[in-house]
Formats: sequence, C-alpha cells, structure tokens
Amino acid sequence: MSERHQQVEDAIVARRERVNSALPEDLPVKRPDHLYEASRYLLDAGGKRLRPTVLLLVAESLLDVDPSATEYRAFPTLDGGEADVLAAAIAIEVIQTFTLIHDDIMDDDPLRRGVPAVHEEYDLSTAILAGDTLYSKAFEFLLSTGAAPERSVDATRRLATTCTRICEGQSLDIEFEQREAVTPEEYLEMVELKTAVLYGAAAAIPATLLGADDGTVDALYNYGLDVGRAFQIQDDLLDLTTPSEKLGKQRGSDLVENKQTLVTLHARQQGVDLESLVTTESVDAVSEAEIDAAVDRLHEVGSIEYARETAHDLIASGKENLEVLPDNEARFLLAGIADYLVEREY
Amino acid sequence: MSERHQQVEDAIVARRERVNSALPEDLPVKRPDHLYEASRYLLDAGGKRLRPTVLLLVAESLLDVDPSATEYRAFPTLDGGEADVLAAAIAIEVIQTFTLIHDDIMDDDPLRRGVPAVHEEYDLSTAILAGDTLYSKAFEFLLSTGAAPERSVDATRRLATTCTRICEGQSLDIEFEQREAVTPEEYLEMVELKTAVLYGAAAAIPATLLGADDGTVDALYNYGLDVGRAFQIQDDLLDLTTPSEKLGKQRGSDLVENKQTLVTLHARQQGVDLESLVTTESVDAVSEAEIDAAVDRLHEVGSIEYARETAHDLIASGKENLEVLPDNEARFLLAGIADYLVEREY
Repeated sequence: MSERHQQVEDAIVARRERVNSALPEDLPVKRPDHLYEASRYLLDAGGKRLRPTVLLLVAESLLDVDPSATEYRAFPTLDGGEADVLAAAIAIEVIQTFTLIHDDIMDDDPLRRGVPAVHEEYDLSTAILAGDTLYSKAFEFLLSTGAAPERSVDATRRLATTCTRICEGQSLDIEFEQREAVTPEEYLEMVELKTAVLYGAAAAIPATLLGADDGTVDALYNYGLDVGRAFQIQDDLLDLTTPSEKLGKQRGSDLVENKQTLVTLHARQQGVDLESLVTTESVDAVSEAEIDAAVDRLHEVGSIEYARETAHDLIASGKENLEVLPDNEARFLLAGIADYLVEREY
Repeated sequence: MSERHQQVEDAIVARRERVNSALPEDLPVKRPDHLYEASRYLLDAGGKRLRPTVLLLVAESLLDVDPSATEYRAFPTLDGGEADVLAAAIAIEVIQTFTLIHDDIMDDDPLRRGVPAVHEEYDLSTAILAGDTLYSKAFEFLLSTGAAPERSVDATRRLATTCTRICEGQSLDIEFEQREAVTPEEYLEMVELKTAVLYGAAAAIPATLLGADDGTVDALYNYGLDVGRAFQIQDDLLDLTTPSEKLGKQRGSDLVENKQTLVTLHARQQGVDLESLVTTESVDAVSEAEIDAAVDRLHEVGSIEYARETAHDLIASGKENLEVLPDNEARFLLAGIADYLVEREY
C-alpha cells in the first residue's frame, strides 16, 4: 500500500473510532429495549463509516482545524459560533443504516456486514420498525447540533430531500430489474439517486451548518455526487476484475445473476447478447474460464474501459470540486478518499 | 344529530376539503410514477383528516381569524409574519398515512379504509418504500412553511420525536400481544405513544410555527394527548357497545380475537378469566347472546364504566387545556371535536 493510501486509511480509522464511540451516547439502548437493540444491531456490526468521515473532514477543512485539538461536539463555525458536527455525522450514518435495513427486506438479502440481516436476526416487523426509528432519530440528531436555526433548517431540508431521492432510486432499481432496455444513462441516474446523494449530503451538510456560502455548499455536494457514483461503478468493475479469493465471493457473480451494471448495459448497447455471455445459471457451477471469456468479450466491445473511464472522470470532477476548500490536510484526505474509492481492489 | 355535532361535522368536512385539494399540489404523481402512485394511494382512499383539522383549527383560534377570509398558505403569524399552515397540516396527515402503511404490513392487515392495504394492492417492497417516501416528504413539507427558522427547527424536532415515539408505541403494542400480564397503565402508555402523540403534534406544531409561548404550546400538546388517548379508548368501547349493523363489523370482535383493550385489561385485574369470557374462536360463528353475556360480565366488574370514565376524564382535561386559546369559534370547534370523539357511535 502506498504511503498516501495508508494516510487515507488511517484518517478513516481515526474518524470511525470517534463515530463508533459516539453511537452509544446518541442512540442508547432504552425502553422498549427490543426496538433499540434491533436499531443498533447493524450499526454495531461494523461498517467503514465513509460518509461520516467525509462529513467530519469537510468540517475540519472548512475551519482549517486539527481534529486532535478540536472537540467535534463543540466545533467552531465560520461566524464564531459552535455546532455539534459529530451529531450530524451520526445522522448520516444512521440514515445509511436505515436504508440498508429496509433494502435488505426488499431484496430479501439474508446477510449484511457478515451477519444476518435485521429481518433475519429479528423478524420483518422489527426490521421495518428499527428502520423507521433510525429514520426519525437521524432528524432528531441533525436538529440538535446547536447550529444557527436558518442553517439547521437548510441542512435538515437537505437531509429530507436526500431521503426522498434515495427512495426514488430504490424504486427505479426495482423497476429496472423487471425491464430489458435500461440505458447506461438511466442506470447512472438511478445510482445517483440511490447511492450518491447521501455522499452529497455528507459533504454539503457540514458546510451548510458551519455557515459556508452557497457556492461552497454546491461544490461540496457535487463532490459527494461524483464520488458516490464512482464508488458504485467501481463496485461493478471489481466484480469482474478482482480474483475471487480477494473479492470474498465468485468473480463475475453479477454476470451469472444477470445483474444490470454500467458495464453490461454498455455492452448491450454495443450489441452484446447478455444472455449468452455467461450461460451457467449458478454461481457455484460457473468456471473461471467462462468468466474469463465473458470479461474478454466485455473488453473487446470497450465496456470495461467505458466504465473505468466514467469512474475516473467522476473522480477527477470530484477532486476539482474540492478546490472550494482551503488547501490543507483535511482537503488532501478528501481527495485521497476519492482516489481510494476507485483504486481499491476489493 | 345535535346542532353542535352538526357544526363540528361541518367544520371537519370544510377543512378536509382544503386538505384534500392541497394533497395533489404538494404530493404530485411524478417520476418514478409507480412510487408516487403507491404513496398517494391510501391518502386518496379517504380518511376523516381529523389531525390536520385540529392543526388548522388551532391556527385559526390562535390568530382569531375566519378561515373563509384567510389563505392557509400565507397564514398570519403572531409577530406579523406568514407561514403555510396547510403544508404543516399535510405533513401531519402524511405521517399518519406512513404509519398506517407500515403498520398494516406488520399486522398483516389486508384492508384499510375499505380498500386493499398498500402491500396488498401493490407489494411488500412498494409498501415499505411508499411509507419511507411519505416519511421524508412530511419533513420536507414542515421545513417549507416559511415560518421563522427557530420555530421551524422546534416544530420539526417535535415531528421527529413524535415519529420516534410512534415507533416505540408500535413496538410496545407488538410486545404486549405476546405477553399476558399487561396493566391498564402500561396499555395507556402504549396508546399515548402509538396514537396520542400525533394528535399532540397536530395541536402543538401550529402554535410553535405561529410563535405562541411555551405555556400555550405545552397546553395544546396536552390537549392532543388527552384527545388521542380518549379516541382510542372510545374505539375499544364501541366494539362492545355499538350494534353490529352500525359498527360495520361483528360487535365484540375484539373479545373473540382476544385483543387487549383498556376494558379487558381492567377486567383481568378484577379477576375475570378472559379466555372463558368468549369461547367461540371465530367472529363468523359467535352469537349475539354470547357477546351480550360477556358485556354483562364486563359491566358487572366495572370495566366498561372504568374505560368510559377514563375517556371522559381525558376529554375534560383536554378541554381545560384549550383555555390557553382565545375564546372564539375555532376553540369552540376544538372542544366540540373532543366531545365528538367520545360521543360518536361508530
């Protein structure tokens, strides 16, 4: 791992620890215990905390402060006030977790973060209710940062519209699975709604709370959108290019399962018959040779290159958007996270 | 129907019409159409709109205005500003609808408002997602009233904590169904959380938005809590006392299905064996005579009287709480709604 990658990893770990120790403070298990245990279950099961890390780094960069010398709970604002940016970071992570819990029900996914999904560990009702509880708690947190009221209103409105868009994205995702002719552009729109807007909110909300001007807030939101879309495209690419041992699952499983990705939707546009690309119907039965042949074909028609280029363009755009921030360590790390997301191998 | 009842009915109908015509404005069906159609489906299926009516009446009373001469969308505030109280009313109705959609999934109820529940008309995923969409839209609406930012923050925080409490109430409701020894006090706490807090929010939020002092806001919140609890207790009573033709379903069906109500929990405390009260296990097979005998027994131990008295005490307390409002037509109607809720026969 390069020195820069190591710095980014360390930065993520340091902020994850702050988020992890704040979670039981802000979301204690209380009566009815069953509900709060279920609400905490997936949060406690792990996760990189990338979104809250982005949020905290934007705050650090904007105010040009060293996190070791600053209390996130009483973070300075640009006009000399204070705001609890850790509460805002928790709000974003809690929204992410709520969407995972409800998505796992909809997709009938039995596993998440290496543990049974909430509806498997508990039951359907508890999972719906745990998600609903996290939903309102996130709004409670974001409304309790102590930031100036007009900024709290703007930040919270951003969170609400973000949640609406995530629902729209999930709805499109479900719709696309039942439809043949999805274009790469439609797919990218769905990814923007389902995944990227929450990165956008994570980057924009601290700027809003701390009193940055509209231009700064907009640029940071776009940084998040860029990075979030690139992240999803890289996920699609890794399934094709990372060896199974490293991936922790069969390489090419998206192809076996006929999952729509930017790569396959581009290939279809190039006239590739996706049905015949991989004919084996089970991930357990597919051979490396069959996956190799399919990946070769996707290279041939330029689909892998198209996806790679799209991701890299987004990362370049994302880093450009960071130029509204002061040139400091935190901005360097935010650029590093952008690179990290497309350079990671699993 | 008495003249006063007729006035209350007319007031509800008039405000319901305003809410109904505002709904397609604030929540238009747009892309992805399937999601927004499903989100609107239960809202369009009807409903009394009692909670938004309470919200609008509190606003009218506080500012002492005649609704026919005032635009709800640009409603005067106590300090000479303006706020869109119709958007706040819609927010409350939309939250109520979201909870119904998710509750119907949890309780596996196939019908609601005389039509198939959302998860029946559409499917499980669409119902979860429609509820989640309404959830965030409600916050969008309440954050867009144009009220002073500090009041918007307070009102929105009230909505968020209300949603959290509704989840806690639903969780207790599910827990109580699996437990024998629930006390009347625990039941009333559950009803407060699951049902009454949203009436409390409906009464308190307009006062907060329009700039009323804390004492007024608190009293109005308590009016809502009182009325909401009385409403639920009356629902429990109606099942026992209203003839089946009027009720639109078998009288005493709660007894056949062993549903916990304030009446039955009180009776158990008096030593009544609830299992033997009605032994027929199906609503279709039960006889009027068996229900009559059970109701007689519940009268004998004072359980029906206990529930009735509790409801009436709550209504009296609710009306007392209204004394913070100016003495005008709207306050008269809010008191009338309180009486209406316990005097209604179905």
